[in-house]
Formats: sequence, structure tokens, C-alpha cells
Amino acid sequence: MPAQLESWCNGAAKSAISDFVTKVTTPNSPTFVPPAERIATFDNDGTLWLEKPLYIQLQHGLRAIGKAAAEKPELRDRQPFKAVYEKDMAWLGKAAADYAKGDPRDVFILVSGLTEVLEGVTVEAFEADVLDFLSNAQDARFKVPYKQLTYKPMVELVHYLQENGFQVYITSGGGRDFMRAVCEEIYNIPRSMVIGSSVTFQYREDAQGVAQIVRTKEIEQPIDDGPGKPPHIHRAIGRRPIMAAGNSDGDIHMLKYAGGHAGLSLQLLVHHDDAEREVAYDGGTEKALQVAAKEGWVVVSMKGDWKTVFA
Amino acid sequence: MPAQLESWCNGAAKSAISDFVTKVTTPNSPTFVPPAERIATFDNDGTLWLEKPLYIQLQHGLRAIGKAAAEKPELRDRQPFKAVYEKDMAWLGKAAADYAKGDPRDVFILVSGLTEVLEGVTVEAFEADVLDFLSNAQDARFKVPYKQLTYKPMVELVHYLQENGFQVYITSGGGRDFMRAVCEEIYNIPRSMVIGSSVTFQYREDAQGVAQIVRTKEIEQPIDDGPGKPPHIHRAIGRRPIMAAGNSDGDIHMLKYAGGHAGLSLQLLVHHDDAEREVAYDGGTEKALQVAAKEGWVVVSMKGDWKTVFA
Repeated sequence: MPAQLESWCNGAAKSAISDFVTKVTTPNSPTFVPPAERIATFDNDGTLWLEKPLYIQLQHGLRAIGKAAAEKPELRDRQPFKAVYEKDMAWLGKAAADYAKGDPRDVFILVSGLTEVLEGVTVEAFEADVLDFLSNAQDARFKVPYKQLTYKPMVELVHYLQENGFQVYITSGGGRDFMRAVCEEIYNIPRSMVIGSSVTFQYREDAQGVAQIVRTKEIEQPIDDGPGKPPHIHRAIGRRPIMAAGNSDGDIHMLKYAGGHAGLSLQLLVHHDDAEREVAYDGGTEKALQVAAKEGWVVVSMKGDWKTVFA
Repeated sequence: MPAQLESWCNGAAKSAISDFVTKVTTPNSPTFVPPAERIATFDNDGTLWLEKPLYIQLQHGLRAIGKAAAEKPELRDRQPFKAVYEKDMAWLGKAAADYAKGDPRDVFILVSGLTEVLEGVTVEAFEADVLDFLSNAQDARFKVPYKQLTYKPMVELVHYLQENGFQVYITSGGGRDFMRAVCEEIYNIPRSMVIGSSVTFQYREDAQGVAQIVRTKEIEQPIDDGPGKPPHIHRAIGRRPIMAAGNSDGDIHMLKYAGGHAGLSLQLLVHHDDAEREVAYDGGTEKALQVAAKEGWVVVSMKGDWKTVFA
């Protein structure tokens, strides 16, 4: 067993990972895959870091919306500014609960509020704000900055794959540029290897004549989730992954796409079954668990397969 | 002078390149740029390979449209199928001439015909067809397969930058997936580092239940040209280039974007002034030549700066 997976308990999941890596990296073996084709794609929220009680990016969004509402009273008579400014937890909690049940309307109103207040902001200014948030704002339960809430065994897995010649990409249903602010620091993944959802951008020359890229408020379609993930992966990488890791129904298509590799492939589904050290939930994962059983994907039990959860 | 730029004549352009690379790679110098930030973006058509008398991708498009018209008589009563099937050089020549003069309507009809016949094709099947075309179809004037029509000094420059820790990307107004079929073979640039225009894609499971990515006939907006290039670069890389190379007005925004780097930056504009060994033309480059003079970009004379043109 490789020392690099030290936070993994010995068991089926760890064995499946190291067997797969050994098989695709053994020269002259019929299962050998050249380094250029060793593509691995990892979902982010719930796969590489915490996603409960709210996506971390939504926490950042609430802060940005709150700042805007504090500065501009005229925003406060409509949602989502009203709820955020008044700390209306009933509205916000219902938005999150509805989303988990498959009704994303109020979450879309939140996201629209966010893209509205960030319209015209340069990509550098957005990144600086995100970096400040992830480095300084603390999670209410764990009392550490959000960027520390990565899953230690998964980060070890990323590094283990990299050491074995894999190119490891993040492919997040959440915001690509949000993750780019910290991906190099927390995962050792270059920002060019982060795929995700995004607004669209415009070229603009500022008052000093310097070329800038600024955010629009329009969300690029499709978002990088569900059946949108494989097209995003193709666009960014141009090769089919031979390994993919996810944790929710939004990852099913990506995992199936990796499964279509002509040679060996590996699919991991992280199962949130550890109420004590993290959060136990199957909401939004029911279908993925069914497909995993049918397709033979490796289901990783946070409770049973991980010695440690957080880094 | 570095041996790797052996096809470059000694002179201002070669000196500007090697001075720039020395300055950004010298440790402890105030102009040092860490490897992660050494991003270079290269236009493709007319910068890395031949673009006359027609874009090479248009030659491939004509073949694909011709094949479809040969197989399906019902297509032949409308453009572009009619002109291609009847080898109506008047219509085709006018389309190209109009495009060069700024009227792209007939070229758009050609492109629409192409995306129509490729609708539903998997990305792997498209790539195989492009690879066959670029490896076997010959350029009428130079009598070699199209993939051999790269500019030797520019390919040397790509390798020289890579050896100096640069990450070199292609960013083409033409088709991203078209270039990906040969980018590793002819430039040593991984396909994940090719940025370009594209159709959109859909996820589909085939009759065997295998996940596939297939082409739609819709062209993704904006295309990767003019003011669309910097947003494409941001999306794919997430960092501002410190060096960019182009040859036409469609590259002005990309070159200006690199020029906005806070530290040193280098902009190259390849000037097609060698009627004997290549083609001499300023059409579509007039504005870029003006901006180059104003901004101090390095104008590379194919005639004066290159010992050899083709590899």
C-alpha cells in the first residue's frame, strides 16, 4: 500500500485505488495507459471539501449580497437582498431546503443577486475577494477558515495520482473562478486545471487603457453539472478521463463518461455517512448510489474508509 | 543566442525574444516571473501555420461538405452544398474575398453547412476525420500534407519557451478540436492547451449504453477571435499571459491583454511579407500593424527574420 494514502483505512476502497493505479502505470502491461492519457476529474463540493450546511460558495455569495445591500438601500426591497439584509433565516433556509428537494428557484434568485452585484468586476478583483473570504471567514461548526475544510484523504489521493503521472482536474458544479483562488494552495492543482460553472466575460480597456476582463451577470450555459459535466470536460481537456470522483447525482454523467474509456477506468463515489465527524446525508445522492451499485463504482465510506476526515 | 532559435536570423526580433526570456527567467532579478505565471498564447492560422489561400480548416470543411453532398442529393439545391458539389469556384472565391473585405456572410453559410453535416458526430470520430485530412490531403502549391505547413521558426520558438519553463497555449480563431487532432504531434502542445472556437456539445449514451460527447450544430459564442480571445484565455487558463503572438487584427485584443501584465511582457506580430517563400499580404492586418507601431510590439518579418519558413 502506498504511503501517500496514509489517511485511508485498509479495505476495498483503498485497494481498488492502488490496484487501478498500479495497473495503468505498469509499463508493458496490457492495462498500461500513457501519462498523457492519465486524466482524472474530481468534483469539488462534497468530494474534495465540505458542502454542508450550505455550499461554501453560497456563504461567500451571502456576504457579497449583504455588503451590496448595506451600501445600497435601494436594493433592500427585493430578494435576495431583502432576506440577506434582514437576516431572514426562514427565507434563506427555505431556499436551501427547496434546492435540496429539486426546486432551485430561490437559489437561482440568490445566484442572480450575486452575479448582479459582481457585474463589471475584474477577474483579479473577484479573486482577491474570494481569497480573503476563504482565508478569513470561519465555518460556524468547525471554527476554521473555509479553505481548511478539505477532506484529507481526498487531497492525499490527488497527490498520489499526480505522483503517478496523472493530470488531476477539478470539475465543479460551482464556480470555476471561485475555486481558482485557492486550488494551487490547498490541492496543488493549477488554476488552468479547474473546470466549473461561470458567468461570461467581456473585454474592456480601463481608464488607463489597460486591457481587462470583467464579469457579466449572465451565467454561461450549460452549467458544469449533471449532463453538462462531460461537455465541460471535453472543452477543457479534449480527452476522456480514465478516473473520476464525485459524491452526488450531479456527478453521474461524469462518472459514466470515465467509464466509457476503452481500457481500465475507476469511478469513486464519496458517501457521506459520518454524522459524527462530518454530516450524514443521502439527499441528492440517491440515484448515484443506485447507479454505483449497478455499474460497480467504488463507494467510499467516509466513516469506514477514512482514518481522518479533515486536513 | 540560444541554439534553439536556429531558424531565426540575428536581428531585432530574435534579440527581443531572447532578451525577454532571459529577463523573466533570471532568478533574483526584479523582472523574474515564476514558472506558474509564464503563460504564452499563440494564435494559430498565419502565426504557427499557413492560412492562405484559404484557412486549412476551410479546406477540410469543403471536403466534408462535398462528401455530404455526394451522399445526399437533396442537399445540392442549396448553399453551400450546391457550390461545393458543382465546384463553383466563382461562389467560393467570392465568399473568401468577401470575408477578407469584412463581409463574412457567405463564409458563415459555409461554416453552417459544415456544422450541419457534423451534427451528432462524436468528438472521437471528428478527430479521426481531421487527422486523416491533415495527414493525407495535400496543399495545392506546396505539395505536402497540410500538417507539414507549420512555420519552422515559430515551432522552434514554442519549444524554446517550453524549455524555459513557459506554458505555451494555442488560441485560435479557428476550431479548437480541429487543432487538437495534431497539436501534440506538430507543436508538442498538449490538447488541453488548445483554446479556440467550437460548436457546443451534448452528452448522449449510445446504443451500447456508453457515454459519448457529440457535436451540435450551434457555434459557441463568442468565437475565439478579436475581443473574444481574452475571455477565452481567461476561461481556459485563469491567468493573464505575459507573452502573446499573432498575425492579424483578430489578435489585437489578445496582444493588448498580455501587455496589461504588471511586469515585463512581449508581443509578437508575424508580418507576411515574403511573397517568394510564402505569401505577402497585409489584408486583415492593417490595424494590427498600426497598433504594433504605437505599442512597441515586435513585428517579425518573415522575409528578414527567418532563415527558413517551413519545417
